[in-house]
Amino acid sequence: MSILIVGTVAFDAIETPFGKTDKIIGGAATYIALSSSFFTKKLKLVSVVGEDFPKTSISMLEKHGVCTKGLQVKQGEKTFFWSGKYHNDMNTRDTLDTQLNVLENFDPVVPEEYQNSKYLMLGNLMPSVQKRVLNQMKKRPKLVVLDTMNFWMDHFLEDLKDSLTEVDVLTINDEEARQLSGEHSLIKAAKRILDMGPKYLIIKKGEHGALLFNKKEVFFAPALPLEDVLDPTGAGDSFAGGFIGYLQKTDNISFENMKKAVVYGSVMASFTVEEFGTKKLEEIKEDHVSCRIKNITELVDSGI
Amino acid sequence: MSILIVGTVAFDAIETPFGKTDKIIGGAATYIALSSSFFTKKLKLVSVVGEDFPKTSISMLEKHGVCTKGLQVKQGEKTFFWSGKYHNDMNTRDTLDTQLNVLENFDPVVPEEYQNSKYLMLGNLMPSVQKRVLNQMKKRPKLVVLDTMNFWMDHFLEDLKDSLTEVDVLTINDEEARQLSGEHSLIKAAKRILDMGPKYLIIKKGEHGALLFNKKEVFFAPALPLEDVLDPTGAGDSFAGGFIGYLQKTDNISFENMKKAVVYGSVMASFTVEEFGTKKLEEIKEDHVSCRIKNITELVDSGI
Repeated sequence: MSILIVGTVAFDAIETPFGKTDKIIGGAATYIALSSSFFTKKLKLVSVVGEDFPKTSISMLEKHGVCTKGLQVKQGEKTFFWSGKYHNDMNTRDTLDTQLNVLENFDPVVPEEYQNSKYLMLGNLMPSVQKRVLNQMKKRPKLVVLDTMNFWMDHFLEDLKDSLTEVDVLTINDEEARQLSGEHSLIKAAKRILDMGPKYLIIKKGEHGALLFNKKEVFFAPALPLEDVLDPTGAGDSFAGGFIGYLQKTDNISFENMKKAVVYGSVMASFTVEEFGTKKLEEIKEDHVSCRIKNITELVDSGI
Repeated sequence: MSILIVGTVAFDAIETPFGKTDKIIGGAATYIALSSSFFTKKLKLVSVVGEDFPKTSISMLEKHGVCTKGLQVKQGEKTFFWSGKYHNDMNTRDTLDTQLNVLENFDPVVPEEYQNSKYLMLGNLMPSVQKRVLNQMKKRPKLVVLDTMNFWMDHFLEDLKDSLTEVDVLTINDEEARQLSGEHSLIKAAKRILDMGPKYLIIKKGEHGALLFNKKEVFFAPALPLEDVLDPTGAGDSFAGGFIGYLQKTDNISFENMKKAVVYGSVMASFTVEEFGTKKLEEIKEDHVSCRIKNITELVDSGI
């Protein structure tokens, strides 16, 4: 019983009002895998890097319980690179540079022993690539979670809508929910999106928390108010990793258990944003997480 | 044991993506009073209107338990008028017109029988006017809540800071908290602001809920996700009215009880935004409120 994670493994260069980095390790699948690894070591990665990707970073992932047999290393090619600069509000950012490199012709291959994974996390990628992974599964996973973004809604909406008919949980942010549904009210947006196929929808609102919907119910987990947010990169992926990691660990995909998973996702994201890159996520210990779970639970406990 | 409310009683003309109004009754004190009136009928109003202000609206306030002896009616003058247009996101707005009229020379007079009020709500007004009300109290009220906005920070910062040394609870929105403190992190902003005098700070985040701080603790109440938000005008004032109304009703100003008061404030604001003006607030019944208190409590109950 494992989680198959597909998504980018990349180099990032990040600038925020609080500092900047050179090329550091990033990518959706990296954040998802590191975050999930707090809950389970049964992680399988499908992704692609170039020959410039450091072996030490692959080892780091393996030490966190991530099987990298499905990580293609393309000789003579370069790793996907993204560079961005966050504005003062930390909620918006400009992309300074995107070099697709190995991602341009990425054809995901799901190794034989991954094809029975019970949990499938389709990290943010071109919808048709996400679909090709789903199609390689021997049997339908117990739970399929798909994360996407506005870029794919702008340019590959039909592919995305096609994928949505086959997933259980969709995770997007509030602006993307509004764009995808054409509704401003998030309650109405959720209804429309759940009519497109997913059984559950998670709307990520960054520092304002996250909403979980099914057709009948809604749950909200706040983000933990933090003293210092240095770099929001990877927060959504860390959230998704915590969410699916907790579900796999407990092997319970009821709405009641998903509520807890959303709180764990929010806590995992709270660590990521406190440092640049994956640094903090790599070092999380049990007591750090349990302390924040307590904080977030008390934060909203009115005693009513 | 009553609540003395000072603030504007006004005409508004509002345009949102969902409709527009002619001149309707508005003003901070109007929303505060109507919202508080759900909890208590011991309400005393200090404000000013012109001779154009409808007697039926004064009667409406009185029917809600609001004593209007402190409401000055200036013959030959006109009521304060504000007109605004909300953008598509409903979080930002342009002021189309502001006619101060009676507000220009407003000298608040606190009637003798108001001067022992145990609870004082200083609604959004020029800080020096708020101060003049506070100075007319015979003895220091049990609780003083002050609401303000960025306009006063821009133009009357010293007056505002002077008032802050004398209040118990300050309510402002997140951008205002950042402006007043010079800190982006709301945790850091709260620390700085609490050092300026108030014992408690409430940061209102509109559709994203509200944070309550003292020097040691923090509490968060979400806003209820709504199908339809027609007009955000008066949401913050309705919140404040619910907050102080609940505190007066229970006559308990502990941090633990303030948490509950924040949830009640959030619920009262949720009604206001569902209609233009004060319409919904005027009609609220016990079971509407108890149902929403249940909804908001369940919304954040993860079961952890």
